[in-house]
This record gives sequence, structure tokens and C-alpha cells, in this order.
Amino acid sequence: MIDVHKISTNCTRNEFVGTAVLDTIGLVISGIDDTLLETMNVGMKYRCLGLFSSRTGAAGQITAIDDAVKATNTEVLSIELPRDTKGWGGHGNYIVLGGTDVSDVRHAISMALELTNKYAGELYISESGHLEFAYSASAGQALNKAFGVPVGEAFGFMAGSPAAIGLVMADTAMKSAPLSIAKYMTPNKGTSHSNEVILAVSGDASAAKTAVLNARQTGLELLIGMGSYPEIPGIPYL
Amino acid sequence: MIDVHKISTNCTRNEFVGTAVLDTIGLVISGIDDTLLETMNVGMKYRCLGLFSSRTGAAGQITAIDDAVKATNTEVLSIELPRDTKGWGGHGNYIVLGGTDVSDVRHAISMALELTNKYAGELYISESGHLEFAYSASAGQALNKAFGVPVGEAFGFMAGSPAAIGLVMADTAMKSAPLSIAKYMTPNKGTSHSNEVILAVSGDASAAKTAVLNARQTGLELLIGMGSYPEIPGIPYL
Amino acid sequence: MIDVHKISTNCTRNEFVGTAVLDTIGLVISGIDDTLLETMNVGMKYRCLGLFSSRTGAAGQITAIDDAVKATNTEVLSIELPRDTKGWGGHGNYIVLGGTDVSDVRHAISMALELTNKYAGELYISESGHLEFAYSASAGQALNKAFGVPVGEAFGFMAGSPAAIGLVMADTAMKSAPLSIAKYMTPNKGTSHSNEVILAVSGDASAAKTAVLNARQTGLELLIGMGSYPEIPGIPYL
Repeated sequence: MIDVHKISTNCTRNEFVGTAVLDTIGLVISGIDDTLLETMNVGMKYRCLGLFSSRTGAAGQITAIDDAVKATNTEVLSIELPRDTKGWGGHGNYIVLGGTDVSDVRHAISMALELTNKYAGELYISESGHLEFAYSASAGQALNKAFGVPVGEAFGFMAGSPAAIGLVMADTAMKSAPLSIAKYMTPNKGTSHSNEVILAVSGDASAAKTAVLNARQTGLELLIGMGSYPEIPGIPYL
Repeated sequence: MIDVHKISTNCTRNEFVGTAVLDTIGLVISGIDDTLLETMNVGMKYRCLGLFSSRTGAAGQITAIDDAVKATNTEVLSIELPRDTKGWGGHGNYIVLGGTDVSDVRHAISMALELTNKYAGELYISESGHLEFAYSASAGQALNKAFGVPVGEAFGFMAGSPAAIGLVMADTAMKSAPLSIAKYMTPNKGTSHSNEVILAVSGDASAAKTAVLNARQTGLELLIGMGSYPEIPGIPYL
Repeated sequence: MIDVHKISTNCTRNEFVGTAVLDTIGLVISGIDDTLLETMNVGMKYRCLGLFSSRTGAAGQITAIDDAVKATNTEVLSIELPRDTKGWGGHGNYIVLGGTDVSDVRHAISMALELTNKYAGELYISESGHLEFAYSASAGQALNKAFGVPVGEAFGFMAGSPAAIGLVMADTAMKSAPLSIAKYMTPNKGTSHSNEVILAVSGDASAAKTAVLNARQTGLELLIGMGSYPEIPGIPYL
């Protein structure tokens, strides 16, 4: 019988890049198996893949990946949002990057891990539900792929659970500044049946930021009105 | 950095109506943003929306909404069942009502919160799984929309998890009285991949009630046979 | 009000066969209600059904069912994978067998419960994620139905969560021996939005076993590299 305690918590495998908050792991496969790559349906352009995946949170991590892809010679191949959050009502994430140079891909994943510790800071989890916010002054390929935000425009994101809170936050956001809806998601639409209403907006940087901050205030008042204060697993940055 | 403890648990926002058991929140938006309303795909008839949403439970809350809609000048616009229950194997709910008069919508949501404390009473959650039951002598618009029960007929509901227990309850129900199947749901069919078999039946009031009570007895025997007694977060009313 | 503590944990209902690890329950319905059987959409050939269902795990239990079906005069009618695992990122299972003889179906379910205590042994659950492995020297009807493994070929299975770990395990497996991919699953593809990459392989028995063992080593190193050791709810058998 295998003795797992003989394995070190200091992982020395080539594929291991590192970890971040919210059960996030970053990995690199330098030359993926051809049959597996075909099956993955992410194209055959890259055999070097960067993998990024968390149990909890999506928008913060995708914002981190967005910056990391901008800064390196890599491309986002797929973004998936599993129904997770370790028993809460939301998503995790699973992202695959491609690149031609291993060190470039490793650098992108490493940078995304570091940025996740910042950008995943706007997560508020109480006994009753959770809220998640994200903001970027200029969306890149990852935010475009995940939420349809036009590249170069500012991005604002808000998710609330139980879902009803998310809709009031969305309404608050839309009333606070002239913005376009990039993506609107509900338990049956666009989510993996999470208990959230999610709104991603695009537009002018100050408008997007104002919308997120107003939605955050509204959402926190409603969530806390359910009777308990949220834990904040990261460090709020907005 | 935001200090969430400056926000009171006594929510004073206009949108806030109240809360109920099972992490249920009731909210009202008196004049929703037009762009958001279009995106919601619930029609453009009402700009005043009532929102109702829980982490745990569906049938009890929908039965509560059903009565509240009957008693007010409101209409059910959408019912969604996220995969939630805070780590157990079932659903939460997210319901949107519409009305032309704010006080009417607020009254509907307020009544639904109060009735939820009663109708969501038939929930049994053990270490191994859960059971949920509901009954109405006369289905209205909400039960029709959610479970296909003909308006005016009696409604019986049973959900069991792990899913196998739900099927034996469904079999018990169908054998106990002459009833029609209004909706049959499994992990791959109609649910949000919850670990449940769900049966909604319609027919005569005493038949529907007998079916639910027999299914409850069967389900409790099987669930308790898995080795632990269930918690009962509400107050059983059947 | 019902007093659940009057019900014994020693279930004496005819339908009850028994339980196994991972909140698994085995049940038999000797003559299912006809209307319910039609609604189930599993054919009308059998009125005697065996039910098998767990909160956590899928491959181990399906491997157990596979052996049980081989050894009895029964047939697999449906296999579903709810999104469950009691708050972790994976699946449970819900399986329906059919047979013409009650004692045969009961025997199949009873054998599957016993084998589950063995075959569901390769499950590793840490604070950060989980890993699941399974192996069979010769796939039967259940493994064919669930994962597309050709009947008679060896079967190897690996699932990793967070999903990125699963892909590195899949890559390890494919590089360790000549094998065919029977099924490849991700949060958006084939799973119930679980936080896993899953690979089922088929081929030669020693190749399949080598692939699973190599994937297990890789997966454990990565999962433990996330900072905590896994719990092992069963007894590893590979």
C-alpha cells in the first residue's frame, strides 16, 4: 500500500510551477502527448502548455492570467469554470495557455500565480453566500475570451450569491455609469449552475471602476443583512 | 481597504425585504435598468421585480411563492434551480417575480418569506444524504411553471439523495394512490446535476398527500438505514 | 410532527440491500410502477431494478458494478454522475441495473457494495483537491457504458482536482505505455461541471496498470505540493 507521507510537500516535479490563494495551482507541460493534445480540442499549434486551476474564484484569476498573457509570448487556449468553491455556491477555474518556449509559458504561469494573490482579493464569503469582484483598466485576450470584453476596454465584474443579490448588484452597476454589458450569467445561463447572478461590464475605466465599487457596497449591505459578516480570504485591492 | 464591519446587519436598503430559513433572501427592484431587463430575457412587461433566492431547498420555497403570487397582483417571470445546498447534494432556488405596483411586489416577496419558514419545513439532511417534500392542495402559476403541475390540481413533491433513495420514494408514491407524473428529474435530466431523483405528482388532494406521506416514510427509513439521523432545519408541517 | 428517532438505523424494508463506503446505498425494487418505468426511459424489458448510488466517487463503484454484472444475470440500464462529493470538486454516482429475477438483482447489488469497499479505495482527498484511480483487467458492460472501454480490454482511470492536476496525470499516463483514450472529460466536457480532468484508457492489462500507477505518483506529488496530505477514505488496492 502506498505511503503518501513519503512524498514531500516541496514538489520537485518539472511540471510544478507553484501555488496561490484559493487552492490555485500552476503547472507546465513542456511537450504534451500528441494523442492527448488532439483529444483536448485546443488546436495543435502549441505542444508546450501552461495550466492554471483553482477550487475557488474565477474573475480574479482570469484577470491575473490576462495580465500574464499580455506580458509574455503566450496565448489562452481554453477557459473553463467548474462548479466548485468547496461547498459554496460558485465556480472554480481551469485555464490552459499555449506557448512555443517553455520558459515563456512557465513565466506566464508564475506571474499569474503572483497576480492571483492580488486580483483574487475581492472575494467575500459569509455563512449565507458570497460576493466576487474584479476590475481591469484594459482587457486582454483572457478577459475577452472568458467574458466577451472588447480588447483594450476597461472591465468590471461582479458576482453575487444567493443569486438574487447578484441581480441587485448588476442593477446598481448599470445605473451608476454608462457601460455595456459584456456578459450576463445566471444559474441556468452561462454558469455551471452556480447560485449566482454575474455581470461583466465594459467601457470607460472610471465608469467600470465606479460600477464595481457601487455594486460592492450594495452587495455587502445585502449579504451582511442576511445576518453574518463575510470572511475575506484574500486582500481587497479596489 | 474596505471595512465590512462598518456595515450593519440591519439592512436599510430599499431593495431589502427580508430573509427566511435556509439562507433565503427576498429583494425588490422598483425600476430595473432597461438594458439589464432586456438581457434578462424575462419580457419587458414589468420594470418592478421581486427577487427570491435560497442556498438550500426548492420545492418548499416555490410552494411559498405559489401562494404569494395567488394572493397578490404579481406574476412569476423565471424560476431557476442552481446546484447548491451548501455542500449537500441538492438545489437552491432563484425566482424572479414581476408586478406593476412596488408595494404589491414587496408584499408578495414578504409573504413568500414568511411561508417559506413553513413550507420549507419538510427537509431532512443527514451525514449521508437528504430528503425534501412539499404539498399544495391547489397548484398556481409557480408550481405550474416549475414542475408542470396543472393549475388547480393538488401537488405532491419528493426528492431523495443519494439519488437511488429518490427512485424508491417515487415508486412508493406512484403505488400509493392514482396520480399523474408532472415532472421526473435525475442527475442528468432536469436537475442541475444534483444527486437526486425527484418526482412531482398531480391529481386529487388526498391522493397527493397520501403519496407524499408514504414516500416520506420510505425515504426516512432508507436514509436512516445509511447510519445516521437527519437534522431538520425547519419545522415539518405534513 | 414526525419523530424521526422512532425509525431504526437497522433498515428492514424489502428494498434495502445495504450500504458501503463513501455514502453508498444499494436498493432493489422488485416490481416497479409501470408509469414510473416508462418515464425513466430505460426500456420496458425489466420490472425488477437494482439501484446503486453514492455521494462520492464514480470509477471505483462502476468497476464494482462491472464485476457484479459479469457475475450475475443482470444488465446495466443507466449510469449517471451527479455533481457531488459532499463539497469537494467531483462526482457521485447513480446506477440502475435490470434483471428478471429479484434474487439475482439483489445479489448483484450486494456484490457491488462489497466490491465498492475495495475498488473505491484509490481515492485521495486533501484540503486542496482530490485524486481518484481505478483499474480493471477486463472491462465489462458497465465500464463500456460509462467510459467507452471496449469489452474485454483492460481499463485504467484517473481523475484529478483541481483540474490542472488531472491533465498532467493524463499526460503522464499516455507517455508511460501504448494505450487508447477511451474517454477524456473536463469541467465543460462530459463531466457534470466537476473540477476535474478525467482520463479513461484502454488497452493491454500491464500497460493500463502502469499508466494508472505512474499517474498516481505524479498526481500525489502535485496534490501534496499544494501543501497538505490527503485523507484516504478507503484502502488503496493498486
